[in-house]
Amino acid sequence: MIGLPTLPSNRRLDLKERLIDAASSLIEAHGLGSVKARPLAERAGCALGAIYTVFSDLDALIMAVSARTLTRLEAHLDKSEREDEASASPTEAARQKLVWLALAYLDFAFAHRASWRALFEHRLPEGRPVPDWLVADQARLFEKVEKVLQPLVPQLPGPERAILARSLFSAVHGLVLLGLEEKLGVMAFTTLRDEIVRIVSAMARGLEETRT
Amino acid sequence: MIGLPTLPSNRRLDLKERLIDAASSLIEAHGLGSVKARPLAERAGCALGAIYTVFSDLDALIMAVSARTLTRLEAHLDKSEREDEASASPTEAARQKLVWLALAYLDFAFAHRASWRALFEHRLPEGRPVPDWLVADQARLFEKVEKVLQPLVPQLPGPERAILARSLFSAVHGLVLLGLEEKLGVMAFTTLRDEIVRIVSAMARGLEETRT
Repeated sequence: MIGLPTLPSNRRLDLKERLIDAASSLIEAHGLGSVKARPLAERAGCALGAIYTVFSDLDALIMAVSARTLTRLEAHLDKSEREDEASASPTEAARQKLVWLALAYLDFAFAHRASWRALFEHRLPEGRPVPDWLVADQARLFEKVEKVLQPLVPQLPGPERAILARSLFSAVHGLVLLGLEEKLGVMAFTTLRDEIVRIVSAMARGLEETRT
Repeated sequence: MIGLPTLPSNRRLDLKERLIDAASSLIEAHGLGSVKARPLAERAGCALGAIYTVFSDLDALIMAVSARTLTRLEAHLDKSEREDEASASPTEAARQKLVWLALAYLDFAFAHRASWRALFEHRLPEGRPVPDWLVADQARLFEKVEKVLQPLVPQLPGPERAILARSLFSAVHGLVLLGLEEKLGVMAFTTLRDEIVRIVSAMARGLEETRT
């Protein structure tokens, strides 16, 4: 950590965790805009300047919160995999798994609304790229979808399947986003679940038909 | 307009248009957060207080901008309808029309990025409902999708088809949103178009298969 004052490493780690906790709880309570140095230092019980001994700036802290949210989302999606029914064909099983993943994504967004929203709302200043470690955290999520997709589109080369996984994710994200934010009018949560099942099943069936 | 000071009606209309223009150009230049009374009055060439002779508050003005954006989007989507190829079956023609609508939505969002984003970013204060006239403007867009969907899902009762139209819109919105905002990494515009074609075609095919 060139350029940052050194602290004994376990004290640094402890302060880092406390700051991530503090930022998370600010986001949960008042949204991304409330992550400011003063309330952070108060909640983490440290001096204002101490923040910058472990994070280069507040954007770096928010990215650490995003990484934690992504890790939790990943664990949540892993739990969505249930036992395959013995009777299901490989493509039927794949369709079913895609639906489970999409529903697990909905449930996570619903349960952790503010942190989930912050993942997408946070923008780095123009010209500052997303760091590789955060890109890698995102990529692991898409790899999950990609793996499930494989039996539906075995003819697609890997890179194209990777793009398709992102597209499916984006489509489901749109359903969850406009459904939960009630931008298109109020929709009952059960209706939203049913619609996700319907749309994801249709996409999976339609993709399967394009196999040659 | 009970409770608002009266102005001769054509002067009122003229001021209203100028304020909508001023708000639009502020949104295009600096985003939704820049719509404040002082710069509005400056751009519209009116006194600060004059704003409130035609709009009850700035939220009402922003909703007038949204209504205009929706009208433009509607006109743009209408242009997406091309001549049916003579050979296409009704369901093939419906699939093709859904793809055209989705691509037209992408093109509109790309060309009018800031106004399009403002449609979704603007939130009314807690407890204030979206006015009926704006809900009706949105509803007309979904009716377009609903009409195109009809041959693919003739078995669905009208209200369910209306919900499905919103779901399809949401899925396409997700693709456009995460694609244009480059939240999942940079994607070439042509790749984004191809992906929209792929996903919308797959959804349409999959939905068609559920016909009984």
